[in-house]
Amino acid sequence: MEPKENGIELSPVEMAKRMACHMAVDENYPKHPKVIGIGSGSTVIYVVERLLTKPGVENVVFLPTGFQSKELIVTSGLRLGDPDCYPDVDVCFDGADEVDDSLQCIKGGGACLFQEKLIGFLAKRLVIVADSRKNSHMLGEYWKKGVPIEVMPMAYTSILPQLVALGALDPKLRMGAPGKAGPVVTDNGNFIIDASFGLIKNPEGLFEKIKLLVGVVEVGIFCNMISAAYFGSQDGSVTVKKSNGDNHIIPPKITATATEFDAIVAESNATPLK
Amino acid sequence: MEPKENGIELSPVEMAKRMACHMAVDENYPKHPKVIGIGSGSTVIYVVERLLTKPGVENVVFLPTGFQSKELIVTSGLRLGDPDCYPDVDVCFDGADEVDDSLQCIKGGGACLFQEKLIGFLAKRLVIVADSRKNSHMLGEYWKKGVPIEVMPMAYTSILPQLVALGALDPKLRMGAPGKAGPVVTDNGNFIIDASFGLIKNPEGLFEKIKLLVGVVEVGIFCNMISAAYFGSQDGSVTVKKSNGDNHIIPPKITATATEFDAIVAESNATPLK
Amino acid sequence: MEPKENGIELSPVEMAKRMACHMAVDENYPKHPKVIGIGSGSTVIYVVERLLTKPGVENVVFLPTGFQSKELIVTSGLRLGDPDCYPDVDVCFDGADEVDDSLQCIKGGGACLFQEKLIGFLAKRLVIVADSRKNSHMLGEYWKKGVPIEVMPMAYTSILPQLVALGALDPKLRMGAPGKAGPVVTDNGNFIIDASFGLIKNPEGLFEKIKLLVGVVEVGIFCNMISAAYFGSQDGSVTVKKSNGDNHIIPPKITATATEFDAIVAESNATPLK
Amino acid sequence: MEPKENGIELSPVEMAKRMACHMAVDENYPKHPKVIGIGSGSTVIYVVERLLTKPGVENVVFLPTGFQSKELIVTSGLRLGDPDCYPDVDVCFDGADEVDDSLQCIKGGGACLFQEKLIGFLAKRLVIVADSRKNSHMLGEYWKKGVPIEVMPMAYTSILPQLVALGALDPKLRMGAPGKAGPVVTDNGNFIIDASFGLIKNPEGLFEKIKLLVGVVEVGIFCNMISAAYFGSQDGSVTVKKSNGDNHIIPPKITATATEFDAIVAESNATPLK
Repeated sequence: MEPKENGIELSPVEMAKRMACHMAVDENYPKHPKVIGIGSGSTVIYVVERLLTKPGVENVVFLPTGFQSKELIVTSGLRLGDPDCYPDVDVCFDGADEVDDSLQCIKGGGACLFQEKLIGFLAKRLVIVADSRKNSHMLGEYWKKGVPIEVMPMAYTSILPQLVALGALDPKLRMGAPGKAGPVVTDNGNFIIDASFGLIKNPEGLFEKIKLLVGVVEVGIFCNMISAAYFGSQDGSVTVKKSNGDNHIIPPKITATATEFDAIVAESNATPLK
Repeated sequence: MEPKENGIELSPVEMAKRMACHMAVDENYPKHPKVIGIGSGSTVIYVVERLLTKPGVENVVFLPTGFQSKELIVTSGLRLGDPDCYPDVDVCFDGADEVDDSLQCIKGGGACLFQEKLIGFLAKRLVIVADSRKNSHMLGEYWKKGVPIEVMPMAYTSILPQLVALGALDPKLRMGAPGKAGPVVTDNGNFIIDASFGLIKNPEGLFEKIKLLVGVVEVGIFCNMISAAYFGSQDGSVTVKKSNGDNHIIPPKITATATEFDAIVAESNATPLK
Repeated sequence: MEPKENGIELSPVEMAKRMACHMAVDENYPKHPKVIGIGSGSTVIYVVERLLTKPGVENVVFLPTGFQSKELIVTSGLRLGDPDCYPDVDVCFDGADEVDDSLQCIKGGGACLFQEKLIGFLAKRLVIVADSRKNSHMLGEYWKKGVPIEVMPMAYTSILPQLVALGALDPKLRMGAPGKAGPVVTDNGNFIIDASFGLIKNPEGLFEKIKLLVGVVEVGIFCNMISAAYFGSQDGSVTVKKSNGDNHIIPPKITATATEFDAIVAESNATPLK
Repeated sequence: MEPKENGIELSPVEMAKRMACHMAVDENYPKHPKVIGIGSGSTVIYVVERLLTKPGVENVVFLPTGFQSKELIVTSGLRLGDPDCYPDVDVCFDGADEVDDSLQCIKGGGACLFQEKLIGFLAKRLVIVADSRKNSHMLGEYWKKGVPIEVMPMAYTSILPQLVALGALDPKLRMGAPGKAGPVVTDNGNFIIDASFGLIKNPEGLFEKIKLLVGVVEVGIFCNMISAAYFGSQDGSVTVKKSNGDNHIIPPKITATATEFDAIVAESNATPLK
């Protein structure tokens, strides 16, 4: 008998993503949270599902990383806040495009990288939830679309050749079709360049070189910001990577049969990743 | 033997669109133009192709209606201008989503409606070029995606029910996927609502009611602005509609075999539309 | 013995403005408010002062009409909201540049007219508080700086002569000095034109003509939106104008000596304005 | 007999500023210029005055660093361009708030620092013209208002304490009064923080630390970008500082009596600065 969600059977990977999110919340929810950041993406819905079970959550202020999560917060009946009013964030739960073994990551596939980085930076803990295709050893291994870079429109022409000089392979302005002729415009009124650098051996160095270019607003490389990442796999297992090195895998049998997450969390140290 | 473009055979509809553009330019190019507006869309490329054959075109200032036409102007070696510096425009060539029998039209499928309307308004003559699917008797007959409306982001929630009260069927915020999570952002930092009103019997009245709503920046209904429209058809013919009522159709045989456009233009009054 | 505020003696006009604000709150605070709008200006501080005395105010969501009121809301410990999340507003308290005898008004001296109009429009009741210099019989009588108009930057050049054609006397782009070279940029990224029309006999007609111009985002004429206006005078009296015609003046003796506002409110119908 | 400008006698400092600008143009105007950048400020008017005397200047594209210089270019009848269309700039003439002995400088008093830096960066030569109060030995010596920093509005609250951690003394959000309530908004829709760091011993290091902060768009410290700076003094002399170390002062007698600038330029190496 398969588990169901609202009467709909979830696939193993959905079950695993959901489990990953619930574990992420349970292991990182503060005792007395005041402000929590919420990211975008289909996975984050399970984060909010779990947050809604926490007593007192109605008094917590939630900061969105973009329009999508703003709507999610409001429609879930949670209390919305602005990052300029609440700069002290307890924890932020967000997705990612790729996370490497040092917990460096690439974000910005949805063009919200600035707000994601700001709230991730403001948060004492940034916790990533994703499906396991985003889990790699080195940045650039699986994510081939390139590093998203938010740039001032007036500067994009001059930034492209500078990115090539830094090693980018065919960097491109991201286009807005079908909804918009011409380039994507971000929520901040800027453009996005996607620049692939192949395997990125030194993400921090690359980030700094790009951010220092005239007209670069933000870079979708997040360094030394992530506390933990939880990945749901196709086979139903959940992989956990932590900044303290406590990595492990929760086998699919446990995730598929668990009805009580506390049980899983209790067992979650039982299967070391390496 | 079929005509070719750069060695590539053009389909009959492409031939007709190209013919429509060349006719549009030939019939509307001023004797001593100073400023010309250029719109977006695949069809407009043929407009620029024809403009480049005009003597002295290198001294004309061209105003783009958006990013795409800006690039087209610059890569064609033409001189680019800003509308705030050149408010007196001789003629503007642009596409459209639908044109009715009174030459009222819907524009904004590419989210550039404000800049298109501004430059169309500044122009002494606004000339539309399009394929014949955009040619209808009444607005809303063929174009089912609705009237594009540019709105201030803060106001979109309150505008949606007001549009319903004006008769809109399920108005929706246009989304930015795949390039951007959340809604499309225009070049002016605003959102787009697409609102279908079925058949629009009174475009001018509808335009005014929508534009007066708090937070509406511009409406993709263009009234009493178009001087002439040229449509290329699947069968290779070109249909011409003019504000002075001089409507006619150029048969495909003529468009397919013509090597001299002047000959066509000379004959173009020979086949009255009705 | 003069009344004092935090040990500082208030001038008669400050006392009257404060009294006007307290009356405005007392007479217009809903029984079970959910969402309240808060405007900008030195006067509004007294509105917030009074709101803070209401039981249960900590559960009300407050929408700011601009950056200044956003800061006021947050520093007062009140709960902040966004207008796109809370489109149903119970009441909005705001300032004005001029209010006529029909309760039409001019706003936008602080360049926030769009957000002010949006929240005023969303509110079931829009209540104005101001000093008595803003109280006039006809718009344009005292306020000589002109109607503030928010426009798209690309369109301002073409809007200026159209305003002249509508009767504007020397309309001007508002400049940003000393903080910014060039024009003021609004919170929405637009420009402001100040256009004086002398005495405005038909505010609603003028508003519609201006709003319909290509590139006009919002006009600082507010028609048929105000429920009541409370003005504090130099002599210490408070003048009240209401949309139901119940106008009256509270003499300075009462305002200066009152320690209980309920007493004043009870008496406030005793002195009809006309 | 004093020299006159349009029948108006110029003060010695105005004469010197004008002389500085004319020298700047004469010494830095390329043989075959294609694209020239033009900055803002009262001094730059003399740059344009001199440029207009150059043969063939009507074929040069001019890039403005802001709204003010855009108007100056257009009203002078020069050809306007956009930096994203013309990324190869021959030379840029601009003002500055302070220039040190290594030709590092502070700019952004007019809130246009991003566009100024972009065009300065694109230019093969960046040439500064200013009055001599802007000429100092070390940044922070005379300019006490602090380093202008353009920041994303959502991030300003979190940036302020980070600037303090970097040594800023009381960094402040620049306000928009009298034209605008709340903070100045830049042409790019951002805010400006003014952060004084006292004497800035390592401008390049400070620039990098600030630019790397989340939400910082651009910093008003310009390092290793300036080719030459020309300062007009109260006593009528012109001081020249060059990146090749060829510094010198043109005495007031020469500037005041010269009718032919070529003569001055010829003599300009005669009086070494140190």
